[in-house]
Amino acid sequence: MPGAFAFAVTHREGQARRGRLVTPHGPVETPAFMPVGTRGAVKALTPKDLVDLGAQIILGNTYHLYLRPGDDLIARRGGLHRFIGWSRPILTDSGGFQVFSLGDLRRIDDEGARFRSHIDGSEHVLTPERAVDIQARLGSDISMVFDECAPATATEAEARVAMERTLRWARRGRARFGQVSAGDAAQVTATNPGQVQFGIVQGGVFPHLREASAEGTLAIGFDAYAIGGLSVGEPPATTYEIVGRVAPGLPDDRPRYLMGSGMPDDLMECVARGIDLFDCVLPTRNARNGQLLTRVGPINIRNARFAEDDRPVDETCGCYTCRHFSRAYLRHLATVGEMTSATLNTLHNLHFYLDTMQRIREAIEFGLFEKLRQEFLRSFSRGPLNA
Amino acid sequence: MPGAFAFAVTHREGQARRGRLVTPHGPVETPAFMPVGTRGAVKALTPKDLVDLGAQIILGNTYHLYLRPGDDLIARRGGLHRFIGWSRPILTDSGGFQVFSLGDLRRIDDEGARFRSHIDGSEHVLTPERAVDIQARLGSDISMVFDECAPATATEAEARVAMERTLRWARRGRARFGQVSAGDAAQVTATNPGQVQFGIVQGGVFPHLREASAEGTLAIGFDAYAIGGLSVGEPPATTYEIVGRVAPGLPDDRPRYLMGSGMPDDLMECVARGIDLFDCVLPTRNARNGQLLTRVGPINIRNARFAEDDRPVDETCGCYTCRHFSRAYLRHLATVGEMTSATLNTLHNLHFYLDTMQRIREAIEFGLFEKLRQEFLRSFSRGPLNA
Repeated sequence: MPGAFAFAVTHREGQARRGRLVTPHGPVETPAFMPVGTRGAVKALTPKDLVDLGAQIILGNTYHLYLRPGDDLIARRGGLHRFIGWSRPILTDSGGFQVFSLGDLRRIDDEGARFRSHIDGSEHVLTPERAVDIQARLGSDISMVFDECAPATATEAEARVAMERTLRWARRGRARFGQVSAGDAAQVTATNPGQVQFGIVQGGVFPHLREASAEGTLAIGFDAYAIGGLSVGEPPATTYEIVGRVAPGLPDDRPRYLMGSGMPDDLMECVARGIDLFDCVLPTRNARNGQLLTRVGPINIRNARFAEDDRPVDETCGCYTCRHFSRAYLRHLATVGEMTSATLNTLHNLHFYLDTMQRIREAIEFGLFEKLRQEFLRSFSRGPLNA
Repeated sequence: MPGAFAFAVTHREGQARRGRLVTPHGPVETPAFMPVGTRGAVKALTPKDLVDLGAQIILGNTYHLYLRPGDDLIARRGGLHRFIGWSRPILTDSGGFQVFSLGDLRRIDDEGARFRSHIDGSEHVLTPERAVDIQARLGSDISMVFDECAPATATEAEARVAMERTLRWARRGRARFGQVSAGDAAQVTATNPGQVQFGIVQGGVFPHLREASAEGTLAIGFDAYAIGGLSVGEPPATTYEIVGRVAPGLPDDRPRYLMGSGMPDDLMECVARGIDLFDCVLPTRNARNGQLLTRVGPINIRNARFAEDDRPVDETCGCYTCRHFSRAYLRHLATVGEMTSATLNTLHNLHFYLDTMQRIREAIEFGLFEKLRQEFLRSFSRGPLNA
């Protein structure tokens, strides 16, 4: 691996791994959750809030940053870290997932994806090569290869087409990454010489397609590997089954990243199947909609039954929000639409995720992860409780 | 004065006063600026942010809190301080100003103001007595008497009618405050036994009406006095002239509060005329619109010329925002509409106000206020600069 990138597993319990990832912007203790900072900010928070929460690494969305303010502008500012005032590690996605979500606004062929901006309708083309160039300008510590994510409703034939295209794109993306890293791409100012690139295993919910994708992606050779195309609408049991089949086949000495997942019980179940890195918009997006996590499951703080509830969101929680504010106050803020509501709710939900990961890491160190997992799943119910 | 309320002037320079106000929730070093926390939160900030900024006291809006979540609900939670998690002093307005701003939705007669909620159209009546009762339930440290604020366009006859009604209301409001304080109002659970009540001088831009209002209000006898009905659209020179006439006639041993004012140069000019307390929505509201203060005047951070400006908003500013983020980043956040934009901008603008007040206090202590005022006004230009 080039530059400062390194990964070591320090403890194991079953398939679960406790490890340490080192990047040009510092270490990440794994398993780790990455808050999503779509457009150069984790919504409703400041970098100081994220450091106080113990966030070790955040995710930036290439699609959004490419459109506004633009990767060239960010490169001229010295890269994404300097631009947004975040000195810890950053992972950027490839932009593919957002582009595929545009529906009628995009057209995909072997060359890449032609799409119209969701902001002003302007036309753009994203290719495996361009996705590398943009992320090189952004200067994330971990860049992702450009892939095609088939929808959860894809037939086997459709999933195969997307998986095979993803492999062809992976070869081109990896080749371009080599050129850019070697300084052989004149028009690309890379802002982070230690950037690495992860490959992505696709194949939908079809085990043999996943197997073929893993084999092909590993043959190309990336710095590490992700599992994409899950948590896109399939049942959780299917997610777990695919993760359980794919993860153990990925290199043991590299971090394994499950993209876009999930609820807290998903994290528990997928750590148990060998995953080291997670990202998901749920804790931040749900916070803005009033859905707050407790040890027994989510509540919607807008519910009228909380109007005079003087308890914190979760009595066992040590976050700033739970230490200082009642459900009654949080309900009021959410009901009237105060921005402070988004901040306090996001602080709580992200604390819940990051604290859960911290507890997972400690449990693996002491060989108590299976106990933690069972206890967690026994108390945590995914449906909204409002109790 | 009842309870823990006290005020002492410790230094003077011309009409400017450096003092200390003591309330049941602690001291306020004056001259002081009160950030506006309309609905139980200073928009886009948490109480921790306000403490970090050095905010000593905040303002709550009785009209908004009465409608949602309701003064009874807040009283059952133990009062506004406990409900919102703010342990420092709070001043509440009387609700009058918001009601009068409702235009066609309200009807005023001698009894009080009948109005329809701006939220759901429901009918409500606010009287001098009810304004006392609501604020007693909220439990602010400083409550304001119910007054009628004539618009800046009022004729002398209209301003006289409003001023005389304000005096009649002041007698009723003061009497009700006495009853509630004595525990003689059965249906009112006062949540702050040390609450005091300020009277309000009205009279528009007409010096002899202001004089009559001050005389009548002083004769009723309040814990301290405010000047209302200014900064409602009249030219700054008129504001300063009225303040300069009214303030010196208010009791020297009580704090003087100029309601709803103003821009930073207004604070400078009105401290010079004997004002001790200020509140204004401008630093917070303008922040959310991208208007940020610098020593030389406001800039609008959305302006395209800031797209690649790596400097902080103000190179002399020590706030969190200026220590960590560039104009280019703040412009990006404002342009794409990130909530973090509102937070970072509000932190900066409130720091500007609170730091200006801190500099004013220190200058008065050292007899250097007039020098500070002249330097400030020489460099600060009120028009947007975008330079």
